[in-house]
Amino acid sequence: MSNNTTSWIQTLTLTPPSLKDNTADADRLVQALKSRLNTPVIDIDPDLLKALPTVLRESKFKVRCILFKERHQWVLTGITAAQDPTPIAGLAIDLGTTRVVLRLIDLAGGSTLAESAFDNPQDEIGPDILARIHFAEKENGLKKLNTLIINGLNNAIVQLCASRHVKPQEIYALSVAGNTTMTHLFMGLDPKWIIREPYIPVVNSPGAVKAQALGLHVNPQARVLIFPNIGSYFGGDLIAGILFSEIYKKSRTCLLVDVGTNAEVVLGNENWLIACAGAAGPALEGGVTRMGMTAGPGVIDQIEVDPNTLEFNIHTIENLPPKGICGSGVIDLAAQLFLRGMIDIRGKLVPAVCGSKIREIDGLLHLIVVPAARAVTGSDLTISQADLDSLIRSKAAMYTILETLTGSVGIAPEDLESFYVAGTFGSFINSESAIIIGMLPDLPLDRYKPLGNSSLGGATLALKTDKYRQDIEQIRDRITYLELNVNQDFMNRFSAAKFLPHTNPKLFPSVKVGDHRLDPPAGY
Amino acid sequence: MSNNTTSWIQTLTLTPPSLKDNTADADRLVQALKSRLNTPVIDIDPDLLKALPTVLRESKFKVRCILFKERHQWVLTGITAAQDPTPIAGLAIDLGTTRVVLRLIDLAGGSTLAESAFDNPQDEIGPDILARIHFAEKENGLKKLNTLIINGLNNAIVQLCASRHVKPQEIYALSVAGNTTMTHLFMGLDPKWIIREPYIPVVNSPGAVKAQALGLHVNPQARVLIFPNIGSYFGGDLIAGILFSEIYKKSRTCLLVDVGTNAEVVLGNENWLIACAGAAGPALEGGVTRMGMTAGPGVIDQIEVDPNTLEFNIHTIENLPPKGICGSGVIDLAAQLFLRGMIDIRGKLVPAVCGSKIREIDGLLHLIVVPAARAVTGSDLTISQADLDSLIRSKAAMYTILETLTGSVGIAPEDLESFYVAGTFGSFINSESAIIIGMLPDLPLDRYKPLGNSSLGGATLALKTDKYRQDIEQIRDRITYLELNVNQDFMNRFSAAKFLPHTNPKLFPSVKVGDHRLDPPAGY
Repeated sequence: MSNNTTSWIQTLTLTPPSLKDNTADADRLVQALKSRLNTPVIDIDPDLLKALPTVLRESKFKVRCILFKERHQWVLTGITAAQDPTPIAGLAIDLGTTRVVLRLIDLAGGSTLAESAFDNPQDEIGPDILARIHFAEKENGLKKLNTLIINGLNNAIVQLCASRHVKPQEIYALSVAGNTTMTHLFMGLDPKWIIREPYIPVVNSPGAVKAQALGLHVNPQARVLIFPNIGSYFGGDLIAGILFSEIYKKSRTCLLVDVGTNAEVVLGNENWLIACAGAAGPALEGGVTRMGMTAGPGVIDQIEVDPNTLEFNIHTIENLPPKGICGSGVIDLAAQLFLRGMIDIRGKLVPAVCGSKIREIDGLLHLIVVPAARAVTGSDLTISQADLDSLIRSKAAMYTILETLTGSVGIAPEDLESFYVAGTFGSFINSESAIIIGMLPDLPLDRYKPLGNSSLGGATLALKTDKYRQDIEQIRDRITYLELNVNQDFMNRFSAAKFLPHTNPKLFPSVKVGDHRLDPPAGY
Repeated sequence: MSNNTTSWIQTLTLTPPSLKDNTADADRLVQALKSRLNTPVIDIDPDLLKALPTVLRESKFKVRCILFKERHQWVLTGITAAQDPTPIAGLAIDLGTTRVVLRLIDLAGGSTLAESAFDNPQDEIGPDILARIHFAEKENGLKKLNTLIINGLNNAIVQLCASRHVKPQEIYALSVAGNTTMTHLFMGLDPKWIIREPYIPVVNSPGAVKAQALGLHVNPQARVLIFPNIGSYFGGDLIAGILFSEIYKKSRTCLLVDVGTNAEVVLGNENWLIACAGAAGPALEGGVTRMGMTAGPGVIDQIEVDPNTLEFNIHTIENLPPKGICGSGVIDLAAQLFLRGMIDIRGKLVPAVCGSKIREIDGLLHLIVVPAARAVTGSDLTISQADLDSLIRSKAAMYTILETLTGSVGIAPEDLESFYVAGTFGSFINSESAIIIGMLPDLPLDRYKPLGNSSLGGATLALKTDKYRQDIEQIRDRITYLELNVNQDFMNRFSAAKFLPHTNPKLFPSVKVGDHRLDPPAGY
């Protein structure tokens, strides 16, 4: 093995035992593996010993070994005859609060065999983390939550494997990236203290656990690498994202933002990493993503407003008749409305410009995006002033978090080599629109890089080589977690960010409304 | 901790978590333990995590930790409030082919709480290893053998614990020393290849296994240290014996002989260890211990023959009426018969001296040891010429093994600082008698040291400090196993040893028959 990575699968030809060399089967195998991997210690899962003599002799001592690297050392988790053609699979899991995504990989080469996803069945208990944590405190509540997710995974594993003619017991290694609460519920650990000051998880670094102990129906000797967290509000999903983005390896500073249930931001490079999470007190109530509906078929994800006719050109996912609007659509819409003067610098609808597109319902102005005649719902599809106000608060919160974090280390946004945007949000958002409304800083568009499902991406990497497992621990140990201090200064920045794109137009030189650059509003 | 030994039980006061220090419960505990034990890595049994938050908070972060040292690292296997008075126990097990002995200890101080023993229930399958190995090859045979010993242990554990008001789940650490086959059957491993050339065990160094995985009903997180073997015929019981005898620490060379089902001999000092086992081909068929019956109440263990009257003065175990004669009694008897001229230098009965004590049954001479009138069996208690011939072969085998082993490294018997004799045999044997018949070399009697149950003794030490666990691995790695080569030279030595005490009386200067030293028999 001359390269730096070590395959989990090693094919060995052992010297058969003789009267001159009566080393036992297990110890003979361990010796050969130590020499191959150049490592002082290799454990054998004790359950493997029962079949070992037969496998060795039937294979004439030519065997295929399946290995796993626990935090500090190697462990043998499977052994077959060298010629055995059965696949050896790995499974990466993105354990989302709302949605769980699975990726089946070939453990030898790391290539993807199949993917699937399912809605987190804990949703029947409550859609958010808080409701589930409270439920876990009821009698058998934790047990029920744990059973829901484990059963959900087991069902999904059976189907995913069947789609590629792989047997669940051919899965030898798993990796799981989830937020801290989801990880606790998955492990059957009490999440009670996560939401109570001083917000303490049961465990930061769970390491590797036997799949059997977790109730997962895969190979009984399979190990599950559980991504570590750095606190109650900064979970393994984000560690996985950092791993996937590779910002911890970059010489120049990059930023990673993951907008899921929460907004989490990591800033750093090969020397340092600093992070904060969006749950930063009352200023951010409502979060940055409670805009519109979840992306799905028939949902508006792109909008353009014709500068001359002010007609709305909409795009829906899968080009189906429109039934609603998702976050990226709302951002597109707000940017276009602002550029066309249909909302002002405070995000308020301008009736004089919007004309007949405006309707007042229960004393609140609404803008008709799709008239009833063209909407699949049969009623007008509108966005209200309240929705726009909520968007303004969200975008201001996002910008303020980004500004605070970069400011805390004296980095200007333009110094960022790359700005990674993870999650579904990152895949669909129009960066230009986000800049126009001042949600994201005014960087050249090519610095914005969507990462897709970075949690799943990181979980996949963790199954590829043992190097990544060391990286995970190093990332966790290197992150400085910045507790967002919602003080007067923060609130001032937040207030300044509540304008489109900002009270200080110099921060957004590329944004022009009509022919003129923006000026600060009166009073600023 | 300024001393060299580390207690398995550590009482810690943790700094409670705060907003400034949000380290998770498990990681906080691990940090404190790492610092206390001055070790870079400590694992927590994942099953402990479920109760951890409650234990920490109810105890106000003052806890008692129960640790175990696996081969290379520490693992936390239990945690209670610091003030919790429940005992923390350990269990040492001597896993004999015939008899199983248990010793319950206080894990904190190492003191013995109670002991018990039971006949190995696998005896119903077969009294010896060979019969059991063949049975294990039948369908469900191995399962049955494993279940017999595990159930036997579980029953014994319940009773042993009850005798000291300890609960089985308060046993957190176990150590098991047995021969290689018994260890395999205990672990549920296939012993098939142990008896087939080239005689390969499944595993030499099983390390530590979770008690739960073995089916033992003790604390679910308890670990079982299983003594390693160095081959099919040299088991963990003897490694335990070496540990207990401490010969591996001595500056001057010592010898350890363990006469159990087999005879095993270890020679060495702090620099080297060389060992051989008695199953050395046809010359030793019958072994060294197939003499007489198992020691027990009413069995003759000591005999003196009055030099004038030739009356037999017998001693029985527990002074009960005689019902038979055990190995040490046979050796005593043979020595006395030889000293009184009742058997000759070849071990043949001398009718002219024995007189009326001799009877011929089916053409074979018998010596009446206890007449029917005084025996509990109601018939004469005799020893036949065949028994004596068998004894001669046994003692010759023992002496030849000792001579060959010491000779192989150029050590004369008189160079031995101590000669340890382990097992029941060692506790009961009269060294002087054994020297007279030439079974043991002619050393000053104070060099012979009975060790008692050295297997149990070693298993107990393994529960005392982690230092002994390192010693176990070092002993295993240091032993050179001498395969007794039954060649012409060995057979010549064996033939020479088949006289009383030996063809070469210079080897036994202390042995005198009557007033004169012994001379070689005619023809030598």
